[in-house]
Formats: sequence, C-alpha cells, structure tokens
Amino acid sequence: MLKFDWTNAKSALGDAGALWKEALDARSVLLNRSGAGSQFTGWLELCGKDNRSQLSRIRQAAAKISEESEALVVIGIGGSYLGAQAALDFVRSPNYNLLKKSTPDIYFIGNGLSADSLSETLALVGDRDFSVNVISKSGTTTEPAIAFRIFRELLEQKYGREGAASRIYATTDARRGVLHEMAVQEEYTTFVIPDDVGGRYSVFSPVGLLPLAVAGVDLDAMLNGAQTMFDGLSSADPAVNLPAQYAAVRNGLYRQGKTIEVLSCFEPALRFTGEWWKQLFGESEGKDGKGIFPASTVFTTDLHSMGQYIQDGLRILMETFIKVEQSGYALQISADEANADGLNFLAGRDMAWANHQALAATAAAHLDGGVPNMTLTVPDRSAESFGTLTAFFEAACGVSGYMLGVNPFDQPGVEAYKVNMFALLGKPGYDEVRRKFGIQA
Amino acid sequence: MLKFDWTNAKSALGDAGALWKEALDARSVLLNRSGAGSQFTGWLELCGKDNRSQLSRIRQAAAKISEESEALVVIGIGGSYLGAQAALDFVRSPNYNLLKKSTPDIYFIGNGLSADSLSETLALVGDRDFSVNVISKSGTTTEPAIAFRIFRELLEQKYGREGAASRIYATTDARRGVLHEMAVQEEYTTFVIPDDVGGRYSVFSPVGLLPLAVAGVDLDAMLNGAQTMFDGLSSADPAVNLPAQYAAVRNGLYRQGKTIEVLSCFEPALRFTGEWWKQLFGESEGKDGKGIFPASTVFTTDLHSMGQYIQDGLRILMETFIKVEQSGYALQISADEANADGLNFLAGRDMAWANHQALAATAAAHLDGGVPNMTLTVPDRSAESFGTLTAFFEAACGVSGYMLGVNPFDQPGVEAYKVNMFALLGKPGYDEVRRKFGIQA
Repeated sequence: MLKFDWTNAKSALGDAGALWKEALDARSVLLNRSGAGSQFTGWLELCGKDNRSQLSRIRQAAAKISEESEALVVIGIGGSYLGAQAALDFVRSPNYNLLKKSTPDIYFIGNGLSADSLSETLALVGDRDFSVNVISKSGTTTEPAIAFRIFRELLEQKYGREGAASRIYATTDARRGVLHEMAVQEEYTTFVIPDDVGGRYSVFSPVGLLPLAVAGVDLDAMLNGAQTMFDGLSSADPAVNLPAQYAAVRNGLYRQGKTIEVLSCFEPALRFTGEWWKQLFGESEGKDGKGIFPASTVFTTDLHSMGQYIQDGLRILMETFIKVEQSGYALQISADEANADGLNFLAGRDMAWANHQALAATAAAHLDGGVPNMTLTVPDRSAESFGTLTAFFEAACGVSGYMLGVNPFDQPGVEAYKVNMFALLGKPGYDEVRRKFGIQA
Repeated sequence: MLKFDWTNAKSALGDAGALWKEALDARSVLLNRSGAGSQFTGWLELCGKDNRSQLSRIRQAAAKISEESEALVVIGIGGSYLGAQAALDFVRSPNYNLLKKSTPDIYFIGNGLSADSLSETLALVGDRDFSVNVISKSGTTTEPAIAFRIFRELLEQKYGREGAASRIYATTDARRGVLHEMAVQEEYTTFVIPDDVGGRYSVFSPVGLLPLAVAGVDLDAMLNGAQTMFDGLSSADPAVNLPAQYAAVRNGLYRQGKTIEVLSCFEPALRFTGEWWKQLFGESEGKDGKGIFPASTVFTTDLHSMGQYIQDGLRILMETFIKVEQSGYALQISADEANADGLNFLAGRDMAWANHQALAATAAAHLDGGVPNMTLTVPDRSAESFGTLTAFFEAACGVSGYMLGVNPFDQPGVEAYKVNMFALLGKPGYDEVRRKFGIQA
C-alpha cells in the first residue's frame, strides 16, 4: 500500500544498523506500554475490526445531519480540527465547499479567536438549515467554547431549544466536563473521545469519524488502511515495519545536525495533511529543549518560494516527500499546431506523469544541494490511502519520540499561553498571573 | 500607520547600537544601488505618485473583465501568484470565492503541476463566462505555460480565436520572450513586468495590480501605504525607519543562533501574507549556505499544533507577530443565563479584544520560553494596511540581505530542480542531464 524510500538519506545517516536496532527497541517500549505517557496510547487500538461497533451510530448521525442540513458546522481546535480537515481535503477536495456535491457543506470554526473568521462563517451558513458538531474533551477550551455559544444561540433562535438540541452532536468525554454535562442536560447526541487518546492522535476516533462520515468518506476503508500500518509495528522486518524505519532515519539525520524537517507534497489537497503532521510531530517531540522543527510545503508552487532556501540555505534541513501515485483526474497535455509556447515535447503526456517527474527532479536536486531526503508513496487520494499515511505517521511519531528521549504523548508547553490568556481575559482564578502583567485584581 | 515593537527581543540581541549602525549602512547600499543585484531594485520606485500613469489602463481592463466575466483565472507561480493571493485574502477574504459579492470570482492556477487542482479549477469555472490573466516574464515557465495552453484552448472553443484573445490579459516582459511574442501575434491586452523588479518584489507592479483591481481592492490606497514605508528608508531615525529596525533585530538574533523565524498572525486572512513573506525572505536570504529559515503560523489555531514546539522545543527560534488592530466585523460575546460553559466572564467583550489578549499572552509566554519576539501592528485589513505591511517587509528584506552578506535579489538555487525536471520531462536540449538519470537520449 505505502512505500518508503530513504535511498537519498543513506549517505548522510551514520550507522543505519544501530539506528534500526534502536528504533525497534523504542517500538517495543511503545507496544509494551512501558514508556512515558503510555496511558495515552489507546490510538493503537482504534482501528481494529473489533472496535468498529460505534460506526453504525456515527453513520446514523451522519445520515440525519445530511437529511436535515445543508451545512455542518464543526467546532474544535488543534487535534479536534486538523485531522478531519486534512482528511476532507485529501479524500474529497480543498475546494470541497465550492464544489457541487450531494453531501452538506462543512465549515470548521472555533479554531481561533478571529472575529472576521467567525462572522464570515455565520454569513456563509446564512439562513440555510445547519447542524453543529462540537468537539472538546473538557468544553472549557476558550476558542471552541465561544464559537459553540454563538452557534448554539443561532440554532435556538432558529429551531427552539429542543430543535437546537436535536441538531447538536457533542464529541466529548464519556463521564465528566462542562460539555459532557451540557450534553446530558440538553440531551444532545454524544460521541466519546476516549480517555487514552490525545487530540493529535484522534482522527480515527469519533473526533474525525463523524465529520468525515458526513462528507461521505469511506470510514471502513480508512480504518483498514490505518490498521495495516499499526499491524506493521509488530514486525522486526524493515520492509514491513515502515513507521520504525522512518523514525530511525529522521532521528539519525537529527543527530547529524538536521534540525528542520520539511514535509513536501505535490498536491494542494495535501496542504492540511502537512498542517496535521506539524501538530503530530511538533507537539510530540518539541519539548525539553529539543526536537526536529516541522515545516511543510506544497510543491511545485513552493519550489518558487521556499525552493531557493531548501537548495542553498543553511544546511540544517532534511526533507520528506509525499507522492500520490494516481491522480483523481486524468488530464492530458494536448498538442498545439503553432507550438508558440514550445510545450509540444509534452503533448500526449498526463499531467500526473509530469508532476511525478517534478518530484524525482526535486529529490535529486535537493540531495545534490545537501538535503538528505525520503519519499513516501501512497497509491491515490482514497480514504484507505489517507488512513495508511496518517497511521504511518502516528506510529512513527510514537517510536521517534521515544528514540528522542521525550514523552511523545504530553504537551505541557501549550499551557503557558493559556494561563497568560486566561489572566488577560479576566477569567476568575488568575489574579496572580494578572499581577505579573501589571493588572490589579 | 505601522508599529514595530522589539521590546521582547532586547535582552537576547547583543549590541543593538552596532546592529543599528550596520543596518543603516546596508540601507545606504540598497538606496545607492551599490550592492549585489542592484539592477533589480526597481521595486523601490513602483509606488510613487509619479509612477501611477498605468493605473487607468489597469482599471479599464479590470472594468472590462468584470463586465464580461463571472470568473477571472489568474495564471502564475511564485512571485506571479503569491502577492495577489495574499492581498486578496488580506483585504477581501480567504473565503472570497464563497462569498456573495459584486466582483468576479478569482481562481489562481498554473502554480503547480497537480492534475487534480487544474481539473477542479476547470470544473469550478464551469460554463460561466471567464477571462484569463496570464503572468510570466518569459512565458516558458512550465507550470503556467501548461495551464495557459489549457485555458487558452477552452477560451478558443468557447469564444473563437479573436474572442479568446480579447479575454486574455498578458502580464509579461515589455520586449521579448514567448509570452510577449504570443501577445503581439494574437493582440492580447498586455501589461509590463519591469526589468528591474524580481517576482517576489512584484506585488505593486501590474503582476499584483490587475487581479487586485478586478477584486475591487483600492489600488491607490495600497500604493500610498507602501510608499510611506519606502520613504521611511531614507531616515536615520529608528522611529521612522522601521524596516531597517526589523532588519537589525532579526540579524542580531540570527547571530545569536536563532536560525528559524516564525511569522505568527492571528487572522486566517493573513495565512497567505505568511506564504508571501516566506518567499520574500527565504528566496532573498536562503543562499550561500546561510539565512534564517522562514516559517509561518496562524494563531490561535496553531498554538494548538506548533505552540508546544515554540514554547519548549529546540531553542533556535525567533518570532514575529502581526497584530491587526481593528477587525472587519464587530462581534460581541453575549451573556448566557445558565452560564453552563462558564464563559460569562467574557460577556459583552468584543472577540477582537479577546484575540488581542491572546496575542499579548502568547508573546509573553514565548519570551518566557526563550523565544525572543517582535510585534508588528497594522490598523486594519484595508488596502492601505496591506501596502504598508508588505512594503515594510520588502524594504526590510533588502536591508537584511545586505546585512547577511548575500545578494538579496537573485535566486540561483531555483534552477536546480528545473534543470532536472526539464531533463526528465524530455525537453529538447537536456540530454546530458538525462544521462545523469540513466536515461538514454
């Protein structure tokens, strides 16, 4: 299904055999639940065939949403947002809301504090029938909480309190938290964020599954693709255990001074796969004063922006390419009698073929320039490919974090801005921090 | 108009006085045209009131496009794309094509080789009336040349050869090149990319101006805003010469080991300002084995993805915030009797105010975490603010590149992938490179 090629990283790597052994050890720590943060490794079991009993409830809810609503407003931030957005773009389209289709429009909001974004989303939903999927473990995260208050009020004005409640789908904790309590009180339909799954590993939980079901994504195919990768983790054969290979190579390069990893795709539909990947690796590894800095590009467009730096700038870069073998559309470059543009050497060629040549050209050029690189190949933009690719990264990230010597499942640094923000916003209980900012309680 | 605050960078900086002197010297090299690449500094003169005679032709063309077409297809890559996209998002909206409006939809294409992107753009234009603005200095850059061939054929099928020609607007070289020759032959309306202006500095030339005129952006206001910043370069007063200040601070931090600069905005409308900025600085400075690696984020959403790394990861980061003082929309957080979400401490507050508190909170948290930072403030999302902000960066980039000791106006590294790609695509004249890839001529 997925191919991983690290030929272009070999010469820069150091002792590959030792790295592989280390990666397998880290893999065992992950699978044996013996490492830091092991209480948050439930994502390893999310995709098995035994764990799909909730899919029918998710599909029922999606069918009701599609029947009643022209738009679904998905409220969430970070891991409660990026996975679904990435999958929607990958499997359907980055132009999803612009395209004619039989499934509802989907708007992601509550992922920031911009008045302009929120107001425009209100305008885009307009007077159409809509439903809301609010996704929050606690219900107290400021950004989604504000958006949920606003869209809940709008639903209540439009459909009354009970009508609103029947259009709200809460994905939250099973037993506690503000959102859980509201859901019980108002009788929202609820889906559970498992206790042992952190936000950035949650795309295969109801966090990702409900919006993706509404978008018509084949959930079984996605989960099947993912399961293959998680199964591969058990193997000591590098040809099977691709996630451990990737973890080994990137850690080897990091130790050689490659402190930035650029994830480069050749399809705009994968832009948000890059955003999701940055959260996964940045939040898992960027701690204790270490970690590879994750950056992402969309080529060939960004070869005309970041290409110069990657080719010739500070030599602290490694790069990972994502190749999509089969395009969604076949598009042939036609012959032109006048050939004024001199492009006839491409006549009869598929665009997809040209795009693949560009990838091979770039990988070779960047290697020549001193940027060791790897290439991941997925067959197409299907749900199965998305599942395979993202599970590959999740599995690799767990292994890689342990190789780096950090807890890949916590995110203590995210609290720092929140505490300051609560203080500045005047939230009760933050008087001491407020004094730090020179504000009297 | 624009404010620049580097309080949070002071302690990390080293000798600020010496840096300022160095920045002023570099500024003089730029203004005196005595540095490397000085033949490409025509952008310094693009915005003056004397240089606006072509605006009336641009406005006429825009009026004709708006009258005849429901959609404008803008074909260009790199600097022939990012400036207009950034301005469109900033001044109008990142949801521009989704919103109801009196101006045509605008699709950017020819900025890559994805068959899926090109095919979807064809589907989105559909059977509506459309015009094309093709932007290319030479006309031989592969990506836009392919897209132009496809859309030109579509125009010719639809309107005949002459009808098509009357809907094609070519922004290209004044005297030479394939696109120039086609334009003369077919009698396209043409606009000139000046010889002394490189792609990444071209947003205030017809490259940016024509699409932005079609989008209803106030060109005079944008150019006025920009001119203020270019005027400021002449001053030795740090309170006036803000671009030189920014150049001084970021170079000082780079010398202290801060090898990555993160540009962090708090509005999704500025996402592509970040993309544009990455080209400007990455392509200008990333050469000769040196340069600050440019990365960008959109907060608060990316505080829940990249926030952890920025707070606690490898300490090689500096950060520049962009604050937009006034939102486009006023949106108040309302009181809720039940207060189940506990948000009533925000009741009656503007979202924009909350967003500003988040910025202040983040700047303080990141400084505490060891990330020196700067804050740029613009009044609003007006055309004037966009002009001011982007001219600030252009001016600063010229100064900064000279401080770094590079030619900020060339991009030799961009050729490496192109040469490989031409070889792999079978373009005539690349047999030797083809042999490198093991392909017989």
